[in-house]
Amino acid sequence: MFQAVLKEVVENTEGGLATLLMDFEGIAVDSYSKPGAPFDITTIGAELSVVLKSIQRAAEMLDAGAMGEVAIQSEKVTTLIRVINASYFIAFSMTPDANLGKARYLLRTRAPEFLKELA
Amino acid sequence: MFQAVLKEVVENTEGGLATLLMDFEGIAVDSYSKPGAPFDITTIGAELSVVLKSIQRAAEMLDAGAMGEVAIQSEKVTTLIRVINASYFIAFSMTPDANLGKARYLLRTRAPEFLKELA
Repeated sequence: MFQAVLKEVVENTEGGLATLLMDFEGIAVDSYSKPGAPFDITTIGAELSVVLKSIQRAAEMLDAGAMGEVAIQSEKVTTLIRVINASYFIAFSMTPDANLGKARYLLRTRAPEFLKELA
Repeated sequence: MFQAVLKEVVENTEGGLATLLMDFEGIAVDSYSKPGAPFDITTIGAELSVVLKSIQRAAEMLDAGAMGEVAIQSEKVTTLIRVINASYFIAFSMTPDANLGKARYLLRTRAPEFLKELA
């Protein structure tokens, strides 16, 4: 079930490269990479789980409420992260010129399916 | 000069609350808060400087190139960060329902003015 949605998100976003469902300890549950994607999404996810923990600590300190979404744009890749619950997140990497609005829409609308399965 | 642009960005974004120019050590250069903003933008910036360092480390590990922009959406506040150069960034906090697209546009187009002053 995860695989189908992970693939759907990548294939329906112009510039989409890879998606990943991971827990906050950095352990991947499932992932999908477009053939020829220029990096390993599991490695990206493991690095990001550290980043997300630092964001969660900051959000707690600032009483900003639960974290929902983080988007990180760098020269070679844009990565969108959607937090599913206290244990899991989805990371979606795309080209810098990808349609980020479409990506955000797809992750936001598919998140409840993941939440149902992971609850 | 910084003050005028920091204020312009907040006042021209629906839902804009506060902006801040800060170095990566967490020291504020200048900031602007809309009257009645429900938090202290300097405190947010100092927490975020830690987060940005962890993102920069991850980007280096992943060879993702220079970091450009980070957007963090939580329940009570959305914060958009634009990296100016290796030493400085701008943080812009807004309400969760603010116009993030407009905010991204404003920070992206005003960044060169900051870069010129800070170079």
